[in-house]
Amino acid sequence: MDAAIPAVVSDAPDGPEATTGLRALYDGFERESLVPLWTQIGDLMPPHPQSKAKPHVWRWQNLLSLADLAGHLVPVGRGGERRAIALANPGLHGQPFATPTLWAAIQYLMPGEDAPEHRHTQHAFRFVVAGEGVWTVVNGDPVAMRRGDFLPQGGWAWHAHHNAATTPMAWIDGLDIPYSYYTESQFFEPGRDRVSAAERATPERSRSERLWGHPGLAPLGRPDSGAASPLLAYRWADTDQALRDQLLLEDQGYPGAVEPGHAAVRYTNPADGRDVLPTIRCEMHRVRSGMATAQRREVGSSVYQVFDGSGTVAAGDSNWDIARGDMFVVPSWSPLTIVSSATAANSESGALDLFRFSDAPIFEALHAHRVQVAGRDR
Amino acid sequence: MDAAIPAVVSDAPDGPEATTGLRALYDGFERESLVPLWTQIGDLMPPHPQSKAKPHVWRWQNLLSLADLAGHLVPVGRGGERRAIALANPGLHGQPFATPTLWAAIQYLMPGEDAPEHRHTQHAFRFVVAGEGVWTVVNGDPVAMRRGDFLPQGGWAWHAHHNAATTPMAWIDGLDIPYSYYTESQFFEPGRDRVSAAERATPERSRSERLWGHPGLAPLGRPDSGAASPLLAYRWADTDQALRDQLLLEDQGYPGAVEPGHAAVRYTNPADGRDVLPTIRCEMHRVRSGMATAQRREVGSSVYQVFDGSGTVAAGDSNWDIARGDMFVVPSWSPLTIVSSATAANSESGALDLFRFSDAPIFEALHAHRVQVAGRDR
Amino acid sequence: MDAAIPAVVSDAPDGPEATTGLRALYDGFERESLVPLWTQIGDLMPPHPQSKAKPHVWRWQNLLSLADLAGHLVPVGRGGERRAIALANPGLHGQPFATPTLWAAIQYLMPGEDAPEHRHTQHAFRFVVAGEGVWTVVNGDPVAMRRGDFLPQGGWAWHAHHNAATTPMAWIDGLDIPYSYYTESQFFEPGRDRVSAAERATPERSRSERLWGHPGLAPLGRPDSGAASPLLAYRWADTDQALRDQLLLEDQGYPGAVEPGHAAVRYTNPADGRDVLPTIRCEMHRVRSGMATAQRREVGSSVYQVFDGSGTVAAGDSNWDIARGDMFVVPSWSPLTIVSSATAANSESGALDLFRFSDAPIFEALHAHRVQVAGRDR
Amino acid sequence: MDAAIPAVVSDAPDGPEATTGLRALYDGFERESLVPLWTQIGDLMPPHPQSKAKPHVWRWQNLLSLADLAGHLVPVGRGGERRAIALANPGLHGQPFATPTLWAAIQYLMPGEDAPEHRHTQHAFRFVVAGEGVWTVVNGDPVAMRRGDFLPQGGWAWHAHHNAATTPMAWIDGLDIPYSYYTESQFFEPGRDRVSAAERATPERSRSERLWGHPGLAPLGRPDSGAASPLLAYRWADTDQALRDQLLLEDQGYPGAVEPGHAAVRYTNPADGRDVLPTIRCEMHRVRSGMATAQRREVGSSVYQVFDGSGTVAAGDSNWDIARGDMFVVPSWSPLTIVSSATAANSESGALDLFRFSDAPIFEALHAHRVQVAGRDR
Repeated sequence: MDAAIPAVVSDAPDGPEATTGLRALYDGFERESLVPLWTQIGDLMPPHPQSKAKPHVWRWQNLLSLADLAGHLVPVGRGGERRAIALANPGLHGQPFATPTLWAAIQYLMPGEDAPEHRHTQHAFRFVVAGEGVWTVVNGDPVAMRRGDFLPQGGWAWHAHHNAATTPMAWIDGLDIPYSYYTESQFFEPGRDRVSAAERATPERSRSERLWGHPGLAPLGRPDSGAASPLLAYRWADTDQALRDQLLLEDQGYPGAVEPGHAAVRYTNPADGRDVLPTIRCEMHRVRSGMATAQRREVGSSVYQVFDGSGTVAAGDSNWDIARGDMFVVPSWSPLTIVSSATAANSESGALDLFRFSDAPIFEALHAHRVQVAGRDR
Repeated sequence: MDAAIPAVVSDAPDGPEATTGLRALYDGFERESLVPLWTQIGDLMPPHPQSKAKPHVWRWQNLLSLADLAGHLVPVGRGGERRAIALANPGLHGQPFATPTLWAAIQYLMPGEDAPEHRHTQHAFRFVVAGEGVWTVVNGDPVAMRRGDFLPQGGWAWHAHHNAATTPMAWIDGLDIPYSYYTESQFFEPGRDRVSAAERATPERSRSERLWGHPGLAPLGRPDSGAASPLLAYRWADTDQALRDQLLLEDQGYPGAVEPGHAAVRYTNPADGRDVLPTIRCEMHRVRSGMATAQRREVGSSVYQVFDGSGTVAAGDSNWDIARGDMFVVPSWSPLTIVSSATAANSESGALDLFRFSDAPIFEALHAHRVQVAGRDR
Repeated sequence: MDAAIPAVVSDAPDGPEATTGLRALYDGFERESLVPLWTQIGDLMPPHPQSKAKPHVWRWQNLLSLADLAGHLVPVGRGGERRAIALANPGLHGQPFATPTLWAAIQYLMPGEDAPEHRHTQHAFRFVVAGEGVWTVVNGDPVAMRRGDFLPQGGWAWHAHHNAATTPMAWIDGLDIPYSYYTESQFFEPGRDRVSAAERATPERSRSERLWGHPGLAPLGRPDSGAASPLLAYRWADTDQALRDQLLLEDQGYPGAVEPGHAAVRYTNPADGRDVLPTIRCEMHRVRSGMATAQRREVGSSVYQVFDGSGTVAAGDSNWDIARGDMFVVPSWSPLTIVSSATAANSESGALDLFRFSDAPIFEALHAHRVQVAGRDR
Repeated sequence: MDAAIPAVVSDAPDGPEATTGLRALYDGFERESLVPLWTQIGDLMPPHPQSKAKPHVWRWQNLLSLADLAGHLVPVGRGGERRAIALANPGLHGQPFATPTLWAAIQYLMPGEDAPEHRHTQHAFRFVVAGEGVWTVVNGDPVAMRRGDFLPQGGWAWHAHHNAATTPMAWIDGLDIPYSYYTESQFFEPGRDRVSAAERATPERSRSERLWGHPGLAPLGRPDSGAASPLLAYRWADTDQALRDQLLLEDQGYPGAVEPGHAAVRYTNPADGRDVLPTIRCEMHRVRSGMATAQRREVGSSVYQVFDGSGTVAAGDSNWDIARGDMFVVPSWSPLTIVSSATAANSESGALDLFRFSDAPIFEALHAHRVQVAGRDR
């Protein structure tokens, strides 16, 4: 609060308002741990969300080279728990928060390394933009991680990682750490330093996939699946096929794509069809070469990673070229437009593929979600 | 109501109760369209459900040969609408009802035949125990039907069928016709006599499968999917794999099966994880050769069809041998045990595979469901 | 049925189409407990609900005098359980069912009489059109019953009644007996012949009202309230006030009434705001003198009792004058218009007050509800 | 953090481990807007919530005298919008936040004053510990405010206040301003400077109360009531009666109270039985003279105001005597015990009455709620 603000309302009478009385009043407020609304309302109650966070892009090569350097310098073990390096939004005062609610980090494991077991109420996922060789062991179930795979991991599940390959591996972690930090709702418990030999198996498919990875088929003897998805891996082959199918439907004149040239899927909990995690929405988008998305803004923030292809992004007042692995942040209510490069030389799908995660489920659960799309009312 | 019943309560005093007064009373009831509870309560309010329906089995060869005979004698067209022949439970007075709530029929189409388009609020599905060649066109989307496929079709969707092959094809239909008949909630509307040439295409996969057939992945531009599943085909390869996976998990010592030697999946709506149809639950069960299910009884009725293998069934006081294609009915609260044959010579999976549908979602929606499993409290 | 396919009509045995083949086919169907769809479809799948039940009115004086006669002739006790006399819809073949899903009965207790304790899964309520003096004891909680009171009683709650007054008392019971009878989901258990002396207390307010009878206030230490309302009495003073308030709002030009001159409240479960019983919707309507309701039809059936005032009803093809206590039935999808008498000489509220119950929650739970109001799309 | 991995501590620049490589690494992190997890994990992921907020008490006399001083010095009008003075938790760096998620303020209107109309997505309520004379006009509906009344006001409803009396009036406001500020989801829109003459009426009961203020009775013509309660006033007479009833039930040996000597009600939305506001839970507690509550801790924070009586509070490491009007804050997971004074000379109810609001609905909606009660597992 700025103590110098004496004129407290717009229609305040003229004259020397900073009277002795007013000074006594403000002194009283300070002494009694009070703050008047009228000096704060512009910041607290703006006409629409005006994010402290800034649109920002992090380049994959920089992330990767620093992670690799850390891999050679910083051991992984109990206490630090993970070799994870978080995106710190330049608008958020050095806090390791990609957005006010979302954590995004690159994680890195050297060959043969173990990240020790723990559990926490924060919801998490991993997404792999490149490489393979790490298995994550969730409640004793070893889950392979490979390029394009999305691996959710609901709060309070035990988990450890180990690199079973001969090369380092990087991936990104997304969590609701900032949200649970600010709302002060987080629990954490350390587990074993290393999982058992049996749990270090490296099966092609996890048990969760064998139980839940069949479209529309639920195991009858299903354990109570809780609020997060019981399916621990969404494989790239499936995701890629779903996106191809949407664009093929578009080619044939049928609905299915989000908008012209833009296919997208949401990762959902097969037990209830809802978001894969209670606080984090995760999606994969594919924008055909040369196409652009409609400008859109939305309550809540998003983090994107370019999975394949290249293009340009306009987020708020920022504009960037983007390429494979780059990560960028779109703050609450910032207008966003994405353009896929006209030439897609380096993309497997011939398009711009973008992984996205956001905090939308929080706002939807509390009836506070709003979306505005240019050219549409919604 | 039995007019001869004069003693209206169990502790009624002795003596000539059928007095003039009582006669006048009962005459008054009849004249005024009234019936006393006390003469009816035993039937209306039994200690537990005592079904009018009987356990009963229908043999596939008999169904098939009569359907084939009908195929040669009875044309298909507007008015009769479908060449469908319904199981009429022997306890239900000749009504075409497999159980008090469920309709089950064999449907049959000759080569080149069309079943005309219509829609109705009754929920329906098709299941194919043998053969292929028919496409069902649901809201303009052609869906292939082949052995092992399950094809739900929610109420009020337009649909027509046509046989694009050179041989007849049979399958079974399940609907909630008796339920909607008794509760008087049904609407029906005829459509075109034949669908368009474009809709007579015979694609390998329907548009619904391309949009919704990827495990855990929901199309972002999904149309509002309503109360029934937007996925119009659940293919046998997926169902078979899911059952194999459960038994493999069991082999490896992990949970997943319903009970020892018994795997099962429920067909669910991928948009919400609930039953594939609001009023009908559909499942596929696999019982290992030589294994038996625990005795179980449940509020509501079920219809089973043997998809593969053979075995014996004890339902209420009835016992049958069962083989591929046979259909049987288990009335409400009747104890059921299923035994898979010790030798599984003729079964592809080496087990007894049973397709099942029931009215359980109705009771669950109204908080009236109860299940009792021998050796378990539930 | 289309005249072009005459061969399939079951009741057309004579004539050239009754070939030997067709005879064999139909004989085969009969032998194998099968019925073809094509002979039944007109009845099973009509364009819209065509109820077997008929609109019908029962006169209160007739109900009351027969109940009183029964009170003098028929004892109440274990076995018969209740001196309840059910409305038997003339269209339903003498079954004691007011509609295909709903039971409606007049119940009668002589001074000092006890109706023994029992419980059943059928959901029930009582409504009092006149008199007082009976207490119903629900799970040990004595609940007074007086003119205008509505008393729900969810399935599987223990209950007994006793008349603590010196005069007989009548009231109406509503249950889902026909629905649970047809769907075969009912359980019943007898309890004590008489409740304890403590439970025979006659408090002004039940414990349930003390816990749950305060608007918008839920007891923090609330027991799990289940699917039915934990509030066991909705008193006339509250209902009357709510209706008066709606019409006063209308007088002042504010919204609140259902339509001009027509106020109505729904009895709801205060724990979740839903219908007071999972299968039965209960409402009180007030139509100003001289006003009429818009013609309306709805999936599902209703039973009405005139609580006060008089008027006329048009239901389907039937027209009746109605007066206090009269009960009438409106079958599924039958158009209904209610007119309140221009003079309201005998009505306390100066209007026509109608208690109504229906099976709407069943259809809403299963996404099968439809309503059509003249002059409105809904 | 484990002493065996000292290299990763950011604040350990001195010593042999502060190698050139590590320096380059940390410099790289800073340059690239990155922060490693391992230096932050202790703060971000504690074993259980460790709130930045502190338990704190604000004395009513101090609040009131400063509000009165402001009443004489600070005009109310457009821009500042409200003469509201917020509790600023001493642990939250001078921000006007009672807890990380909740705003609590005293608001004050002089005789004849108007607070101008506006609307915002933040959910709000008012609670009156003393006085009367102000009407709040919510979407054009004038609502009286008097001692003991609770007045919710869901997000995006237009509202203005005016003091129709000849004395100043104070009350408290509760909002989710900090939560929506941090999650950046807030919208605001100014309305008219003064509401119309008709809206300045001072009726005894609001229209909302006439529609929704009858226990268990929902208006059939109810407008879509949204996520917040359509009932705009919960009157003290009802709340007091509900609490009396619970303690009378306890006196008679029946369940109803939360724990011995402790009655409580939750303000709920009568349309769905859920919390009165989507993000804020509001309750009134009554602790009998001489009784204490069981120690309890809970995810999420609470603000209390003493409505009547006196006692002592132990919150975390803090202990206070409390009296009428005092407000105090209990941070997330802080243990809380409340003791009601043995003598209740100044209390109307003869007990300690406490109004409470908390952010529990947020955590419940996201499956992150936990409660621990001494002597109980929950």
